[in-house]
Amino acid sequence: MPYQAPLKDMLFVMNELADLAGVNALPGNEDATPDTAEAVLEENAKFVANVVAPLNNPSDKEPSWWHDGQVTTSKGFKEAFKAFAEAGWQGVQHPVEFGGQGLPKLLATPCIEMLNAGSISFALCALLSDGAIEALLTAGSDEQKAIYLENLVSGKWTGTMNLTEPQAGSDLAAVRTRAVPQGDGTYKVFGTKIFITYGEHDFTENIVHLVLARTPDAPAGVKGISLFIVPKFLVNADGSLGARNDAHCVSIEHKLGIKASPTAVLQFGDHGGAIGTLVGEENRGLEYMFIMMNAARFGVGMQGIGLAERAYQKAVAFAKDRVQSRDLAGSAGPVSIIHHPDVRRMLMSMRSQTEAARALAYVGAGISDVAHSHADAEVRKANLAVYEYLVPVIKGWSTEMSQDVTRDGVQVHGGMGFIEETGAAQHYRDSKILTIYEGTTAIQANDLVGRKTVRDGGAVAKGIIAQVRATEAQLAAVGGADFKAILAQLSSGSKDLEAVVEFVVANVKSDIKGVFAGSVLYLKLAGLVLGGWQMARAALVAQQKLDANEGDASFYKAKIATARFFADHILSQASGLRIAIIDGSAGVLALSEDQF
Amino acid sequence: MPYQAPLKDMLFVMNELADLAGVNALPGNEDATPDTAEAVLEENAKFVANVVAPLNNPSDKEPSWWHDGQVTTSKGFKEAFKAFAEAGWQGVQHPVEFGGQGLPKLLATPCIEMLNAGSISFALCALLSDGAIEALLTAGSDEQKAIYLENLVSGKWTGTMNLTEPQAGSDLAAVRTRAVPQGDGTYKVFGTKIFITYGEHDFTENIVHLVLARTPDAPAGVKGISLFIVPKFLVNADGSLGARNDAHCVSIEHKLGIKASPTAVLQFGDHGGAIGTLVGEENRGLEYMFIMMNAARFGVGMQGIGLAERAYQKAVAFAKDRVQSRDLAGSAGPVSIIHHPDVRRMLMSMRSQTEAARALAYVGAGISDVAHSHADAEVRKANLAVYEYLVPVIKGWSTEMSQDVTRDGVQVHGGMGFIEETGAAQHYRDSKILTIYEGTTAIQANDLVGRKTVRDGGAVAKGIIAQVRATEAQLAAVGGADFKAILAQLSSGSKDLEAVVEFVVANVKSDIKGVFAGSVLYLKLAGLVLGGWQMARAALVAQQKLDANEGDASFYKAKIATARFFADHILSQASGLRIAIIDGSAGVLALSEDQF
Repeated sequence: MPYQAPLKDMLFVMNELADLAGVNALPGNEDATPDTAEAVLEENAKFVANVVAPLNNPSDKEPSWWHDGQVTTSKGFKEAFKAFAEAGWQGVQHPVEFGGQGLPKLLATPCIEMLNAGSISFALCALLSDGAIEALLTAGSDEQKAIYLENLVSGKWTGTMNLTEPQAGSDLAAVRTRAVPQGDGTYKVFGTKIFITYGEHDFTENIVHLVLARTPDAPAGVKGISLFIVPKFLVNADGSLGARNDAHCVSIEHKLGIKASPTAVLQFGDHGGAIGTLVGEENRGLEYMFIMMNAARFGVGMQGIGLAERAYQKAVAFAKDRVQSRDLAGSAGPVSIIHHPDVRRMLMSMRSQTEAARALAYVGAGISDVAHSHADAEVRKANLAVYEYLVPVIKGWSTEMSQDVTRDGVQVHGGMGFIEETGAAQHYRDSKILTIYEGTTAIQANDLVGRKTVRDGGAVAKGIIAQVRATEAQLAAVGGADFKAILAQLSSGSKDLEAVVEFVVANVKSDIKGVFAGSVLYLKLAGLVLGGWQMARAALVAQQKLDANEGDASFYKAKIATARFFADHILSQASGLRIAIIDGSAGVLALSEDQF
Repeated sequence: MPYQAPLKDMLFVMNELADLAGVNALPGNEDATPDTAEAVLEENAKFVANVVAPLNNPSDKEPSWWHDGQVTTSKGFKEAFKAFAEAGWQGVQHPVEFGGQGLPKLLATPCIEMLNAGSISFALCALLSDGAIEALLTAGSDEQKAIYLENLVSGKWTGTMNLTEPQAGSDLAAVRTRAVPQGDGTYKVFGTKIFITYGEHDFTENIVHLVLARTPDAPAGVKGISLFIVPKFLVNADGSLGARNDAHCVSIEHKLGIKASPTAVLQFGDHGGAIGTLVGEENRGLEYMFIMMNAARFGVGMQGIGLAERAYQKAVAFAKDRVQSRDLAGSAGPVSIIHHPDVRRMLMSMRSQTEAARALAYVGAGISDVAHSHADAEVRKANLAVYEYLVPVIKGWSTEMSQDVTRDGVQVHGGMGFIEETGAAQHYRDSKILTIYEGTTAIQANDLVGRKTVRDGGAVAKGIIAQVRATEAQLAAVGGADFKAILAQLSSGSKDLEAVVEFVVANVKSDIKGVFAGSVLYLKLAGLVLGGWQMARAALVAQQKLDANEGDASFYKAKIATARFFADHILSQASGLRIAIIDGSAGVLALSEDQF
């Protein structure tokens, strides 16, 4: 089953839910018209369908491999990356000044979704480069920008993020890599970094490693971490490549999934010291890294959505093709399994969660564009706060969702799903990394509770809930069983979410462990309610279109049915989550360590 | 982390919840005293820990392989099976008459759990032999019993179940394999069977294939299927091995998990016809196969529980060992991650679901023993009906649960979980087959709705719910926050289950697809409520022991806390399931095929 980008749904969400027209009206976004958006998405969809998607399953069977410090990537990957770079796809969202297309995030987001639906293993290289570009744009010196940005934006070089060390995973305070100033403005970097995605590969002539390390007199903990550029090859003043730097890939990991993406162990400074230059100021490395990380976290959320879409399409194709057993309602012969109610339930669960997560993410992207480009600083600030609330939800919920969806994807295939050549199992394996890298779901949830909810006393969360209530009022004005059910679950869910926000704010000081015992559940609840909100908004638009006799009636009817499914089957989980969060910490925390 | 059988919990469940004393008092079970049970479990635990468990991860890396029709199993498997057979473990639950130990199912069940916790890939061979033994005991002729049973019970030979064909997976009506009578009492069998677990291996000198096939004049559909014994080697009258039969393994599958277990494609009759003998009567094959299948379904449920226990133990060991980040409540340095609330939440979720599923399964095993051995035919009948209601729940819920648990198991490990050498990922991969083979979860749910609920108008289900209500009354008599919370969730859950049973019975005729749209959700709801019921019973016993100052107080306190966790976090999902089942079919069924 070839992947076909869900362009109709993407454009519907962009235009009707994420206010593409409003984003287009922002200063600097004049080129991002709905017509341009459609054209860009169509081109990207073709590129992914023709060049990237066909590599996904073969590259899983023939992963990247390490030999003598080099990594050879899967067959076809190098050529595909060259085509990707030459077509300008790396630069979609990056500034025109450095060779990018300067398009808003709302437009770049579906491109990221498609590329990841094509192949997460392939798309990861571009995702990491995006992060490096963002960090250099924010904190790089003019000289660093001049040396690196254009080549990263064009895809001539690629970027990496070097955070993790064996003893420092989620806990970056434990970073030990050292950076010793040489007196000439450069530093010598020494240390071991693990889990470095595309830390070594054969796509490009150079790799720009962004590395967290400590200077000799740095304070302990996260306040003593600085960010350095450590390129694989040093760059001469004229931009040509200089000496090989002392940064070497000593092995790559044997992983459950994303096997074609090389995950490197990098050794810095084993042969005298790797030359690096400081990005921004000393000891502010974590702050800069969070710029990369936030972009990357949103991107990982899109990976979840792209993967879920691909797994859904595969399952639908199988369910239409595989003939097995009679129709329950009594046909004579066996029928394709899409006729069986439980197969439909699984497909609808996959579909509705994918659509809800897509809608929430694209709406988030549009809000990010307003936060970056609106003329009014107050509007920018307010939108930034909403976007920052949404990032951990989009990352955490969309990726957890992708694991539910890919699991159902295997299940729809029955015994064939368990056989690797079918390909459904690869999606299940690939999905498992998404809730781990760029911050586990628990790390996202810590962010949601701490920085995004407690810090402002729940103000942003409640502001969003007020918007959900406005949608509920609109739902109430529409008749019929579908809208009644959607309203019932959304209003129940938004009450649950509000109760949880209040619980979190009220109890975090007196019972911090009790609050954090429910942090991941709060994140999930927020995803359900806000995803359900977007599905409700979609259903309202669809009903307007149907009433006005506009457009594709079948598409709009399906949208309403899908929103209905999401309400009854997914959003209905909200009340259980509220109980687990508000009443459930005692059970989480009761056992002593030796009782486990 | 070596696997250690949870003997304390196993014996607690057997003695306090599953009425081992009552089972011991049944005719023929005189040997199954609590002391014997403890001794058998301890011996089995040692065997698994020393011989089987260490093979699990190495055998995943070096799976069984096919060459020229032969299968060489993973290193150490052949020797381990020999030791397993010689120690008499294959015969635990089989009749003394054929060399077994004749112990009740309640006693065999923990042994099956342990063996599967040790290695599902290894244990599968024994599980399939158990099924073949059950079928021959029920339907085999005296001659067939004499030829095959002793050798199967001793583990000198092994058995297989040959149901699936490329076009006949869940739909056995589509079986095409032919059996042509030769006039001498034998048949020649022709056809292709796929997904045959241990269809070929190097453990034993012979393999006893039980094969579904059609005789020339058989009616179409499931009513024309007969069961045949087709041994790999024919057996001479004196019991010695005769000619190689025309049943050959032409390949084995490359699978997501259980890689060490060979999954064979068997070709019957390509060289003139495979010689088989009919089991029982013609056209009653499906009925006999269901005898094997019901035993195997219960066994697969135990696989889920064993796997969940092993994943839990591995995650606990990692969480105690891995140091990362400070304690939220403010310790100075970094702490082991078991101090972090979300890690605890995951561990408690894994633990509580595993314990609940174990309790429900062992209680089911005890009920099965009463159904088989009680002196009073009415008591046998009533208990058989309850056991048959429980089988699809135990199979379906325990295996779906194992996928939640192994997913959390990877997540607890963070980035290390995604690296194959850690071993957590293997559990995640292995778990995915459990909801598929021996009938997918949807097939279990069809059974639960059709044969087990609708056929008797919900009588058995309601009888069980009445027992849950009796436990609720006991809970109400105990004070304290934990019991209050357990009561609240159990009484809410039992109301939800009752409402769903009534919905199913009332609507199955008028809206069959609408009812079956919620069948898997009904199965899950039944699992939650009945599992929660057992946890509540366990908490009551624990409180009695604490009040009486008997036994290990830490164990009993942990049991109450675990029951509390299960109530707030797992059982609290019941209300959402009720909504999805009763209100949610419209969303499942709304789309036409071309709208997908």
